Amino acid sequence: MFNAKAYSAASATSSLASATIPRRDPTERDVQIEILFCGICHSDLHYARNEWPDVLPAVYPCVPGHEIVGRVTKVGPGVVKHKVGDQVAVGCLVDSDHTCPNCKAGFENFCPNLTLTFGSVDKHGTAPMTFGGYSDSIVVDERFVLRIPAHLDLAGAAPLLCAGITTYSPLRRFGVGKGQKVGIVGLGGLGHMGTKFARAFGAHVVVFTTSPGKTEDAMRLGAHEVVVSRNADEMKKHAGSFDFILDTVSADHDINQYLNLLRLDGNLTLVGAPPKPLALSSFALIFGNRSVSGSNIGGIPQTQEMLDFCGAHNITADVEVIPIQKVNEAYERLLKSDVKYRFAIDMASLKSE
Amino acid sequence: MFNAKAYSAASATSSLASATIPRRDPTERDVQIEILFCGICHSDLHYARNEWPDVLPAVYPCVPGHEIVGRVTKVGPGVVKHKVGDQVAVGCLVDSDHTCPNCKAGFENFCPNLTLTFGSVDKHGTAPMTFGGYSDSIVVDERFVLRIPAHLDLAGAAPLLCAGITTYSPLRRFGVGKGQKVGIVGLGGLGHMGTKFARAFGAHVVVFTTSPGKTEDAMRLGAHEVVVSRNADEMKKHAGSFDFILDTVSADHDINQYLNLLRLDGNLTLVGAPPKPLALSSFALIFGNRSVSGSNIGGIPQTQEMLDFCGAHNITADVEVIPIQKVNEAYERLLKSDVKYRFAIDMASLKSE
Repeated sequence: MFNAKAYSAASATSSLASATIPRRDPTERDVQIEILFCGICHSDLHYARNEWPDVLPAVYPCVPGHEIVGRVTKVGPGVVKHKVGDQVAVGCLVDSDHTCPNCKAGFENFCPNLTLTFGSVDKHGTAPMTFGGYSDSIVVDERFVLRIPAHLDLAGAAPLLCAGITTYSPLRRFGVGKGQKVGIVGLGGLGHMGTKFARAFGAHVVVFTTSPGKTEDAMRLGAHEVVVSRNADEMKKHAGSFDFILDTVSADHDINQYLNLLRLDGNLTLVGAPPKPLALSSFALIFGNRSVSGSNIGGIPQTQEMLDFCGAHNITADVEVIPIQKVNEAYERLLKSDVKYRFAIDMASLKSE
Repeated sequence: MFNAKAYSAASATSSLASATIPRRDPTERDVQIEILFCGICHSDLHYARNEWPDVLPAVYPCVPGHEIVGRVTKVGPGVVKHKVGDQVAVGCLVDSDHTCPNCKAGFENFCPNLTLTFGSVDKHGTAPMTFGGYSDSIVVDERFVLRIPAHLDLAGAAPLLCAGITTYSPLRRFGVGKGQKVGIVGLGGLGHMGTKFARAFGAHVVVFTTSPGKTEDAMRLGAHEVVVSRNADEMKKHAGSFDFILDTVSADHDINQYLNLLRLDGNLTLVGAPPKPLALSSFALIFGNRSVSGSNIGGIPQTQEMLDFCGAHNITADVEVIPIQKVNEAYERLLKSDVKYRFAIDMASLKSE
């Protein structure tokens, strides 16, 4: 075991503050990583403040962060995928049972025994629970360590590990590409990545937003059209015309107005997670054999595929880089959607703590 | 034009009563049919009582009925599919524009200009609106007239035209068959047909019901297992195990408890049409990449395929045959789910009116 620097929350109402946490020495197939940047995902805030008590009750102290990029500093003797000096990344998962049908099929994200990057029981016993990426280092089973293409901006690459794969996976699952009309609902951390990917896949991309002020930025990010969803006439023009809609909104909202924009057999996939149930009109689904789906990050092979795609197309998130000392302020700004479009913590700032 | 006998409703609060209605003489591609049996669908009651004012506002007088079987008595000179004496059927549609992409693909049920069997504007002008199957005859474009396999019981075949195709179509769409575990929610007119089809396709069939008293009958109809959905422990045993669930309930109910029973990528399809929006948990969809879909009857080619399948496997609905004079009483019993599992009106009873 060795000590690592981190920022942790002591309770649901505490600010995040400097702390020392234990990390295990690399075992047989472990990779030790010096963390260079960590993105801030809304899930970090939900967990730190115990806002999902039924789904993922928080245990304190907690160290959030699952959009991790860094450099390999040490490897266990059995590691074959990575070597010291490699530029690597870690996302929402750090382990699974490796043996279930989902793991065997590369869907580690649906392993019944998965270990989340933060907030899961630490099966190595180094700490009661796993500690995430708001830290200067992390030790992870090599299967869950991804390669980052060399020329990608590292701060911008960090959010690919959650916001990136969360939007890439459903767009791939539903075969989004040339000749298709695709909607992106909401232009935040997830939505801006969905817009970039849908455009890169060759689709005609329409961004739905409640803020007319976001139009110019949406076009810059890759939208062909922007629709202000509060404008009923504008919405009506698109009725029955979308092949696929990616809904990234995590607050309560009317999904039926979007379902009515889908063509026959069209699909709307939810990747935001509104805490309360949404109102679903059965008529909106029945008239058009439409579907609404959910999608939860992606498996490790697809996450690597996504990173490689980003390397080939030079895609990263638009980030505002902050020192770790500003993380509490960043949380408050997150609640006001005051970020374009993701915060990335520069972990060099942790050295002074 | 000629006069036909029928039962019609004069207003949302009137009983159905004997009436004379006009039918057109067959034009070039029309088929004139003597109606022998007509099933009673819950939609008949919804329409007659104007219970779907936003979706399909009723116009009076109205003649419900869209589960029609009978015999061809006359054909127009251009008719090639049917001849006098043929045993035929008509379902929910009597016409469409024949030219849109959906019509060309055999999805007449999604034609933007379709003509419903009752309650659509009569584009021939014989009457203001189309009149349905509670009548001794009907005249229909040959494209919308189906062949009934010779040996099928005609009263039991009538409900195939709506309850049959409504359940057959989504089971086929999601590839239900051998090696799959399939749930049927609700054991009424739709549910009992879904059970028969899912069993005939080779799936392991589990019927969900709120009434323990229906267990024996569900097994007789084809279920391998019956789960009382109010029993939380029994439900829990099936978590994450279903490939597909067909939800036939048309009242408000908790779909999330069924979504949680789906395996990774599993689908629940709604064919009932609860009048109010359902509560949809985004977590139930996201944890497992699950989907909920809607399905609306089926196109004409698939309806014929379904009838031919029923012929080959000797599948019909379980019906209680009634004279038309008992139709109002049947509506009251329908509201209490007091029918196993569909009423079929014997149209011979109309001769005495």
